[in-house]
Amino acid sequence: MAERGAGMAADIAEQPEGYARLLEGDHAAAIAEVAARVAERRPRHVVFVGRGTSDHAALYGAYLTEIRLGIPVGLASPSTVTLYGARPDLSDALVIGVSQSGGSPDLTGVLKVARETGALTLAVTNNAESVLATTAELHLDVAAGHERAVAATKTYTAELFALLLLVEGVRNGDGTLPAEERKAIGELPGLAEQVLADRGADDLAQRYRFASRLVTTGRGYAYPTARETALKLMETSYLPALAFSGADLLHGPLAMTDPDVPVLAVVGSGPGGRAMADVVHRLGERRADVVTVGPEDVAGASGRLAVPPVDERYAPLLDILPLQRLALALALARGGDPDAPRGLKKVTATL
Amino acid sequence: MAERGAGMAADIAEQPEGYARLLEGDHAAAIAEVAARVAERRPRHVVFVGRGTSDHAALYGAYLTEIRLGIPVGLASPSTVTLYGARPDLSDALVIGVSQSGGSPDLTGVLKVARETGALTLAVTNNAESVLATTAELHLDVAAGHERAVAATKTYTAELFALLLLVEGVRNGDGTLPAEERKAIGELPGLAEQVLADRGADDLAQRYRFASRLVTTGRGYAYPTARETALKLMETSYLPALAFSGADLLHGPLAMTDPDVPVLAVVGSGPGGRAMADVVHRLGERRADVVTVGPEDVAGASGRLAVPPVDERYAPLLDILPLQRLALALALARGGDPDAPRGLKKVTATL
Repeated sequence: MAERGAGMAADIAEQPEGYARLLEGDHAAAIAEVAARVAERRPRHVVFVGRGTSDHAALYGAYLTEIRLGIPVGLASPSTVTLYGARPDLSDALVIGVSQSGGSPDLTGVLKVARETGALTLAVTNNAESVLATTAELHLDVAAGHERAVAATKTYTAELFALLLLVEGVRNGDGTLPAEERKAIGELPGLAEQVLADRGADDLAQRYRFASRLVTTGRGYAYPTARETALKLMETSYLPALAFSGADLLHGPLAMTDPDVPVLAVVGSGPGGRAMADVVHRLGERRADVVTVGPEDVAGASGRLAVPPVDERYAPLLDILPLQRLALALALARGGDPDAPRGLKKVTATL
Repeated sequence: MAERGAGMAADIAEQPEGYARLLEGDHAAAIAEVAARVAERRPRHVVFVGRGTSDHAALYGAYLTEIRLGIPVGLASPSTVTLYGARPDLSDALVIGVSQSGGSPDLTGVLKVARETGALTLAVTNNAESVLATTAELHLDVAAGHERAVAATKTYTAELFALLLLVEGVRNGDGTLPAEERKAIGELPGLAEQVLADRGADDLAQRYRFASRLVTTGRGYAYPTARETALKLMETSYLPALAFSGADLLHGPLAMTDPDVPVLAVVGSGPGGRAMADVVHRLGERRADVVTVGPEDVAGASGRLAVPPVDERYAPLLDILPLQRLALALALARGGDPDAPRGLKKVTATL
């Protein structure tokens, strides 16, 4: 029998390679072609659907689309269509279903209805043969390869990376990347390697060994990272982890933080990070134990998982890496097997 | 000094009266007029923005809009506009900002940009003089009166009720309600009185006195109720409460439930409730302690907070009432003061 967590560790380690793969050859060409098709259709608005980890990738795609393309975006609740039979008129829309397996009947249901009502439909999956991929008019293969662990890691970041290439390709009009953008994105595989070489997350796992719960927070592009971190900690360590946008945390849930509750705050080097500085400061006043993920130390925090400084829109590709390692190391420290956590199946058939 | 929780108790008790108020005279006429204006403009899509409790009301509005009007809906992240300077083209859209105080600068920022780019804008607030109300082209006054407690209760349900009247008025075309709809909605104040007369929630608070965390769940129209319940428990009792859609709970987070973690499941009498039955069953198999809120006993659950059977789209107006009472009673049982919880301010100025 394999060592506990060996699968998840291998999945995590493969991510830089996964990024590089999408920048080359057939995969890059396929993404550029899809981006050109989307640019040609000029959707008036974009609707994302996803569940769990893929919902967090969809959220990242939503920020990118609204900020980089100026197209309004919504995150849809599949149940309006699948449970209540809603038939929204999506004829001006691009509807994007994000799913690692491509096997979720609820997302397929939404894309089917969307296509029937005239929407441009796009499936972002790790399985080109899946029903979601064949239901949608367009398909982006995130090409992450077989995922060993049940908890998704490399398929999540492959979804992020594919969505980044898609949006920047649409922005450029013909699906390709402008030279400067290509250069910056081309550095991400190497930077990801560098982040994964740092073992700070393993030490942090020792510190959180007996934590009874945890809060994660971030704003803007970093909010999906906070959400995904919370889910990963819950899936692998059964640790109740509450994710809040930095803005929402300053409403009621700030009362949830006290010195016994570790806070993981994603604090980047752009507008989202600057907005988070006040949140970290207020958490510090409450004597909360805040550890940040980001390129610089933040006043009020007791520690930091270091990542290189990059534009905030690239940061989700790097910030999640030490947090995945944290989830893995914490699950091992707490005696669990992150490759096969209790109660978790790879594909869940919800309608 | 007033008795602990007296303010929140009074706010909760006023809700049936608040519903009745919106069905009559000037308030009803004002809502009908706004609904007629929206119907006339025929928006191609609708964007909701809100934070905290008002975000849950917005989510309810989103389900109603997509299911009852067949108009695609998105929930926007204000930060794309306020932090990253996005200027999405919203000329075909109706943009609805929901906020009790109407004082959130981030929502106001989104509505301002939306109005500048040609969107129809609507503020749903409890303060007609607020900056959000005066920034938007249209305003719905939820007329809940002054809220005594910091944790929102009657302003939440007033937002739900106003959104229900709005959407049904738009559906009917001229802003008024069809006779049958009017009759069904007209029964809600009396049914709300009946629900509040039941004291089952107080007993349940005793049972949860020493719980260390809690999970809430629901699907479709009931999902906002699950989210709002979790927030209310966190705000008033500092009890970590994780809200999941029933669909997401069957993914990873099911591992979070074990016999030590109480689960509150909202199980109505329509499609959402039927989809929840399987979730409750699976929770029962894990020997989770499930209490439902709904009109009928559910196999696998150990108890139930009773509410009358109504169409699922009305149920959020009733289901939340015993859950607010639970939050109040639990805060008192745990020695807190739900009228003035630590770390919570009424208006939070986030950008």
